[in-house]
Amino acid sequence: MLFFGGDYNPEQWPEEVWAEDVALMRQAGVTIVSLGVFAWSHLEPEEGRFDFGWLDQIMDQLHAGGIKVALATPTASPPPWFTLAHPEGLPVTADGVRLTHGSRDTYCVSAPAYRAAARGIAGELAARYARHPALALWHVHNEYGTDCRCDLTATAFRGWLQKRHGDLDTLNDAWTTAFWSQRYSDWAQIMPPRATQYLPNPAQVLDFRRFLSDELLGAYVEQRDLLRAANPDIPVTTNFVQGGWVSVDHARWASEMDLVAVDHYPAAADRNAEAETAFGGDLARGWAGGGEWLLMETGPNLIYTPGRMHAKEPGRLTRHSLNYLARGSRGAMYFQWRQPRGGAELFHSALVPHAGPDSPVFREAVGLGRTLKALDGQVTAPVPAQVAIAWDAPSWWALQGGGLPAADIDYLGAVQQAHRALWTSGVATDFVFPGRDGFAAGLSAYKIIVLPHLYLVSDEVAAALRDFVASGGHLVTGHLSGIADPAGRIRLGGYPGAFRDFLGVRVVEWRPLPIGTTIALDNGDQGVRWSERVETAGAETLVRYAGDVLAGAPAITRHRHGAGTAWYVSPGLDDDALRRLLDRVATEAGVPPVLPGLPPHVEAVRRGDLVFLFNHGETPGTVPLPAPATNAITRRPLSESVTVPPGGTMAIELESRSDAGCPAG
Amino acid sequence: MLFFGGDYNPEQWPEEVWAEDVALMRQAGVTIVSLGVFAWSHLEPEEGRFDFGWLDQIMDQLHAGGIKVALATPTASPPPWFTLAHPEGLPVTADGVRLTHGSRDTYCVSAPAYRAAARGIAGELAARYARHPALALWHVHNEYGTDCRCDLTATAFRGWLQKRHGDLDTLNDAWTTAFWSQRYSDWAQIMPPRATQYLPNPAQVLDFRRFLSDELLGAYVEQRDLLRAANPDIPVTTNFVQGGWVSVDHARWASEMDLVAVDHYPAAADRNAEAETAFGGDLARGWAGGGEWLLMETGPNLIYTPGRMHAKEPGRLTRHSLNYLARGSRGAMYFQWRQPRGGAELFHSALVPHAGPDSPVFREAVGLGRTLKALDGQVTAPVPAQVAIAWDAPSWWALQGGGLPAADIDYLGAVQQAHRALWTSGVATDFVFPGRDGFAAGLSAYKIIVLPHLYLVSDEVAAALRDFVASGGHLVTGHLSGIADPAGRIRLGGYPGAFRDFLGVRVVEWRPLPIGTTIALDNGDQGVRWSERVETAGAETLVRYAGDVLAGAPAITRHRHGAGTAWYVSPGLDDDALRRLLDRVATEAGVPPVLPGLPPHVEAVRRGDLVFLFNHGETPGTVPLPAPATNAITRRPLSESVTVPPGGTMAIELESRSDAGCPAG
Amino acid sequence: MLFFGGDYNPEQWPEEVWAEDVALMRQAGVTIVSLGVFAWSHLEPEEGRFDFGWLDQIMDQLHAGGIKVALATPTASPPPWFTLAHPEGLPVTADGVRLTHGSRDTYCVSAPAYRAAARGIAGELAARYARHPALALWHVHNEYGTDCRCDLTATAFRGWLQKRHGDLDTLNDAWTTAFWSQRYSDWAQIMPPRATQYLPNPAQVLDFRRFLSDELLGAYVEQRDLLRAANPDIPVTTNFVQGGWVSVDHARWASEMDLVAVDHYPAAADRNAEAETAFGGDLARGWAGGGEWLLMETGPNLIYTPGRMHAKEPGRLTRHSLNYLARGSRGAMYFQWRQPRGGAELFHSALVPHAGPDSPVFREAVGLGRTLKALDGQVTAPVPAQVAIAWDAPSWWALQGGGLPAADIDYLGAVQQAHRALWTSGVATDFVFPGRDGFAAGLSAYKIIVLPHLYLVSDEVAAALRDFVASGGHLVTGHLSGIADPAGRIRLGGYPGAFRDFLGVRVVEWRPLPIGTTIALDNGDQGVRWSERVETAGAETLVRYAGDVLAGAPAITRHRHGAGTAWYVSPGLDDDALRRLLDRVATEAGVPPVLPGLPPHVEAVRRGDLVFLFNHGETPGTVPLPAPATNAITRRPLSESVTVPPGGTMAIELESRSDAGCPAG
Repeated sequence: MLFFGGDYNPEQWPEEVWAEDVALMRQAGVTIVSLGVFAWSHLEPEEGRFDFGWLDQIMDQLHAGGIKVALATPTASPPPWFTLAHPEGLPVTADGVRLTHGSRDTYCVSAPAYRAAARGIAGELAARYARHPALALWHVHNEYGTDCRCDLTATAFRGWLQKRHGDLDTLNDAWTTAFWSQRYSDWAQIMPPRATQYLPNPAQVLDFRRFLSDELLGAYVEQRDLLRAANPDIPVTTNFVQGGWVSVDHARWASEMDLVAVDHYPAAADRNAEAETAFGGDLARGWAGGGEWLLMETGPNLIYTPGRMHAKEPGRLTRHSLNYLARGSRGAMYFQWRQPRGGAELFHSALVPHAGPDSPVFREAVGLGRTLKALDGQVTAPVPAQVAIAWDAPSWWALQGGGLPAADIDYLGAVQQAHRALWTSGVATDFVFPGRDGFAAGLSAYKIIVLPHLYLVSDEVAAALRDFVASGGHLVTGHLSGIADPAGRIRLGGYPGAFRDFLGVRVVEWRPLPIGTTIALDNGDQGVRWSERVETAGAETLVRYAGDVLAGAPAITRHRHGAGTAWYVSPGLDDDALRRLLDRVATEAGVPPVLPGLPPHVEAVRRGDLVFLFNHGETPGTVPLPAPATNAITRRPLSESVTVPPGGTMAIELESRSDAGCPAG
Repeated sequence: MLFFGGDYNPEQWPEEVWAEDVALMRQAGVTIVSLGVFAWSHLEPEEGRFDFGWLDQIMDQLHAGGIKVALATPTASPPPWFTLAHPEGLPVTADGVRLTHGSRDTYCVSAPAYRAAARGIAGELAARYARHPALALWHVHNEYGTDCRCDLTATAFRGWLQKRHGDLDTLNDAWTTAFWSQRYSDWAQIMPPRATQYLPNPAQVLDFRRFLSDELLGAYVEQRDLLRAANPDIPVTTNFVQGGWVSVDHARWASEMDLVAVDHYPAAADRNAEAETAFGGDLARGWAGGGEWLLMETGPNLIYTPGRMHAKEPGRLTRHSLNYLARGSRGAMYFQWRQPRGGAELFHSALVPHAGPDSPVFREAVGLGRTLKALDGQVTAPVPAQVAIAWDAPSWWALQGGGLPAADIDYLGAVQQAHRALWTSGVATDFVFPGRDGFAAGLSAYKIIVLPHLYLVSDEVAAALRDFVASGGHLVTGHLSGIADPAGRIRLGGYPGAFRDFLGVRVVEWRPLPIGTTIALDNGDQGVRWSERVETAGAETLVRYAGDVLAGAPAITRHRHGAGTAWYVSPGLDDDALRRLLDRVATEAGVPPVLPGLPPHVEAVRRGDLVFLFNHGETPGTVPLPAPATNAITRRPLSESVTVPPGGTMAIELESRSDAGCPAG
Repeated sequence: MLFFGGDYNPEQWPEEVWAEDVALMRQAGVTIVSLGVFAWSHLEPEEGRFDFGWLDQIMDQLHAGGIKVALATPTASPPPWFTLAHPEGLPVTADGVRLTHGSRDTYCVSAPAYRAAARGIAGELAARYARHPALALWHVHNEYGTDCRCDLTATAFRGWLQKRHGDLDTLNDAWTTAFWSQRYSDWAQIMPPRATQYLPNPAQVLDFRRFLSDELLGAYVEQRDLLRAANPDIPVTTNFVQGGWVSVDHARWASEMDLVAVDHYPAAADRNAEAETAFGGDLARGWAGGGEWLLMETGPNLIYTPGRMHAKEPGRLTRHSLNYLARGSRGAMYFQWRQPRGGAELFHSALVPHAGPDSPVFREAVGLGRTLKALDGQVTAPVPAQVAIAWDAPSWWALQGGGLPAADIDYLGAVQQAHRALWTSGVATDFVFPGRDGFAAGLSAYKIIVLPHLYLVSDEVAAALRDFVASGGHLVTGHLSGIADPAGRIRLGGYPGAFRDFLGVRVVEWRPLPIGTTIALDNGDQGVRWSERVETAGAETLVRYAGDVLAGAPAITRHRHGAGTAWYVSPGLDDDALRRLLDRVATEAGVPPVLPGLPPHVEAVRRGDLVFLFNHGETPGTVPLPAPATNAITRRPLSESVTVPPGGTMAIELESRSDAGCPAG
């Protein structure tokens, strides 16, 4: 069954709406809804007094309508009574401000009272619903990521540090506490990062983010185990959310999920929304180890851009939804089913908006439901790619601090730019995770590995990358990669310390460009944001700097190492220059696009036996088909080419499956 | 007597200056001064020890000089001794920071100790000065608006909520606490909005602002009653201040004032200062129910623009002052008489600046004093207008929160733009207040009602507006009006839920424009900031969207409803386009400008028997006179036209008074 | 011995690196290092337990290598154990947030526990190392400037105020507490400036900054006396740091230093870095009373610009270093010797960078070391200048508050602009300090005094300036000078109250220009940021305003007063216009440049017998020599002119020393 549905909050509506909801869900072909997220104060209106009547009723009504349930534990938002009884369960900012209820996520994950209450309500739900016939999935909590700096957190942090570092000498060394007289002589002296006079210790900040990720994961595992115990057949998950402020290393978390579930909200309204959708889908598939995952939330009809809620153009809901599906999602779920009348998010996106079902979004949803029904059973395992980008949450965190050589260093932006370049060229791309078990072994599946801003590198990861090149792979990296060890200590002797040998270069000076300037390269491109003084040590110089004091110095190099090739890209590049460079690498490595000969703005994604075509442009796009094909939705045969209308989507089945991945042969 | 004067702080100066002050006041024709604002620490230097000697003396000196006194209660700034003795009387921020004395307004209006101290000092002043011959007005406090989130405030807030909502179920429903698990099971769980994890509950924020307005009003009423009791013949007021941060619903407050008094500071140095002056004057007259009000403070020689104190050009003090007068003020008062040597506002505007009376501002003040003296007795009741704009403080508050579809929604800006459009066309404009007693009955006085961003609408207000149209009126509204009930809950089924029927439209999708873009309309104009998918349901489409996915969809519509007409303006418009649209409505409704044939930048305002002319331009402006006329200041007869010099002002008396309001008729 | 070296932190490195360090220092010609800054937690790992073994060892190793030591007391960063034991020793923000260790400078200078601990560790160091043969200088603390608003600070502040003001009446008058009801009736009511409702009292803020400067100085003196007592032959200093947030009046502090030491970091990467270097050097020499001082810290290879660390171009390290030397520094020291592997400043500048000694910066340092060695013994006392700019920290502080007529008033910018104008014209410039002993007497050494934004002026200072003019001097000042007394109370009757008589002008109105606009002057220049209505009262008008309502009014005036001349510059000027004006003043006053006929971008600085030439341009610059000369580094004779390569530096010895300062004479 493909998942199609969204967050459903019957507790916000009178009972008479419930019947209409189920009827509309059936009309739209909804197959599953997320129930009970944020319903704690309705399930347990006072401490220890539970009210499951309404949930029983709606579970039964949904079941009667043939709709499955992803039942949530509501622990992301403790009720006001909890807060009043347990103020120590509220989160505290770095400034020492104890937050108050009145929003959501007002809890401290390290507070025993909170953890006990969370286990309590999860246990009640497990006991009552674990074998309900509508139940298809447990949805633990919501978007883990809440930060706290209280004294309970300090205690937990110290415990985590003792496990990680063993003794204080090791910690003092890892944190370079010799700088600024921070040497700890007792574990009790160590605090979470709190308001301090000037720049904090970056290693302390980094370890705190790691700790918080693990601490939150502990809270998840506690609930998961309890739900699993009640019925081992029901998969358990939580919905990942991504953002610079979220201290969750999803690559580590994924192994504890029965199904990786992801909330994904593109942040741009223009064509970048499509690039972000592709990025989000590929990254989620990476977390899921290349297998199936689930889009748990996205905005059906809105894109949240800075300062604006942008209404999607007609067809865009369908195009985005099928794009996630093509990239490995088990379906498409949304926040939310019905737009609320009040509350803090009363203008957020919904399948049934304030205007009601007589609205563009609901009509498009009905059509999408039909399409998904037609595709059910045809979408099989995703097709692995031949190119992979490395994603590393700790490197992201390390590059978010102050004290860096440039204030606009943007880890996420660098990774997205690399992905966007490959996406624009139509090359299928996976993600790999340097910190994860099996990383080294997994590299052999790829012809090209791209490392944007892989700032922190362990010796093991460096060795795995070296072996990848030596064994014949193409590795592409650039500035700010290979700089430090996992504690953030610089690898000395010239950047990038971890990779100098197999890159055949040595960087002796960073020269971030003055804001608003670029630097000429001798191939006619412009370096942006960053330049460096690079010395070659075996590498061949492909492109040189052509301006500034660096004139004539190497900018882009290539080094034969063993059977493979390592490319070093010193300057920042704009999108077009980066795409051309990666095209060259792909050509040298023999990596073709998913389909050759695509018109501009038409995207092709292969999943199992199907190829999905997306026309993100404003004119029809005609796609030559490399083999006899069938329209996977209508099941009609197709001629030698298909034309995708502007904004449209097609799913086709190509006959010659054995050519998968190399249609251009 | 026309009021002419300003805030006077003799306590900042040695006694020898006092005599000079009275002499200079007489030279300038000052008739009244505000005395004692912020003088608490001089009147009561220690708890319970009073020093009235200096005030006795200056009251007598002023009286001897023929100058009246608006005597203030100094309760806006408790002395340091109060704070030290009653720290719980200090305000607390949403972050929990208890503020300290050292500025002004460091009090919590819900603190019993503060309230008792305020009644104490006000009572002493009442007892001593209520029958002083110089006393003409009580000026309670200063610019009520101070916010606090402390526990005493929490208690008062809960009491207010109990009165408003009756029981918790009603409150939970009004606040949609089902969203994010905020359901309250005990009143004690409810807090003022305080620092929380993410977006606050908008209904809680809205009710808190209402509460704060009522709570501050209670403090005013307490003082007023006490002052009134001491001498029922002396009117009592407080000076209203306007600003996005001020939680005071002046429309509600006005009925408790004996004379509505307003502080008004335009925020632009260019021609917008004149538009803002007109806006401020008309709004104040609206608060006063169309009758006389008082400009209590404005900057005589400075305009406070962002980052700059702008010195007014010669003549501008006069032009602004008479504009307020023309719009219904009883005169013109200023902050302040004499510029202080020190203190936080040592550079604020004054009639006697640091340079002393030998200065441009004092010389212009002397001339203005003569003009006002000449006009005394000639200015009678303001002339009601035929157009009114609705002003609604709760709608403003509701549109200030986060979580809205666009971050640049600007309630005040939208109201000011509508007023500016009518002002530019020379059409006299009133303000009406949907939440106020008599609102429905008052509508019949107008031919046109304009509703900018009237976001919150009760059923009663919606019915009154519907009746207004049905009875023959012209109603103009646009996006973000009629959206929600007074609790902020969306009126479902399509926007604007409250007005759909009589507008004959249904909006199914909001499409705020990407920042920096516009959308073409088929009449050649451009929509700005906002667009929508509008469906007509009876209305006639006057203008269509011409670009984007909305091409061909209705943008501006007109609907005959009963005997009247309702106009819907979906996009944002620039000033010129809005002016042309409102000109069209005025033409259809038969509403003429105050005077026809005015040259650009010359403004005409009618008050009672007089017409004031203001030339805001840089060239002379010749105004044809529709009837025989007299210069009201010189009392000389005028010929068929008058020429107003650049920057100049004239007051003329037209003979044919029976044509008032319809001179073009 | 010229000082050449930098901060050295062996405690951050394993012992095996120490030997390499000493060897590299010898290779580079390092003569001295700063040791032990921030080493408290290594010297006293637990309260009362000291570990001097490592310091003994490195002191001995350095001594063996012939390298001297500036030994620091590490009191700028108490160890975590101190904080845990004495939380009252942590600083508290104006919002009441008590900061936590984890950065540096987490101390309250008014906390007795902190002061005792600081004396303790300083005493231990004194006892152990005062007679160590490597010791050349005591370096107390680091960059004093930490702010605190806690209750202990409040107590100290009250004590300081009692000494300054004597009684409360005087304080109430000085602070104009009559404004906003702030009159204090008990010392206990007075607080440091803390979070308050609105604008704070500017006099309270000003006195708090003065207090903090004195309080920090007290902490310095305490340590100095203790170190001096241990060995009177070793000079004691602390490193001054400059910044808008630093409450240290270095002009007052300098008299307590045995050698004025300065940290100086230019903030621009373009040619302004050179102007800032000249400014920093001249200001430091001023603090040192015209004598020798020491550049204690600058970034050897980086310039810290907003959002960027900019790598210096080749030769720039040398050029900057010799410029400080030419301006009176005893040498050049850097932060830091070896770039750290971790910690908050792991990317800060160093002589031995992450890349190691095989790097551009280390190679340039080696060359610079050779140059300094060649110059050793040749650089004698600096040459006094004939022009001086006044620098006044309290005026800076007073102009940083809110409530000023323009938000972009920039004291530092105004002083730097005046200096830059003279620097561009090649005129040697000193600084004088109105608040300092000997100010009046010192003026006679100069022909021109420039007073940018000298906002606060005592009667004594005003009299000294008046005498300077009367005795034949040229005084140049402009808007925002002479406005207030030292308490910030306005001098009434027209600006600039303190200087009206000898300037022969009276300013009756300030007219800061609307942001983004300029005002025409009748000499073709444009006024920027500021204009005023100026009335002359004896002065001659040189330039008039030509636009706006000021058209025809005086803009720049000159007044003969006694034997001298006082110039008033009402508008802001751009760099070029100000330079031309000061050129004119210099010509009238008979002040020549250091060397005539310099090509653009070539700078000449005379120190003692030497003239240093700096070519900041990108082309060679040929300099005619006014007398027979010798290359001071190579000791080779020079012909009639020398050519300085782009980016290059030369030191030459001119034979005709008696012409010093008047080579064009």
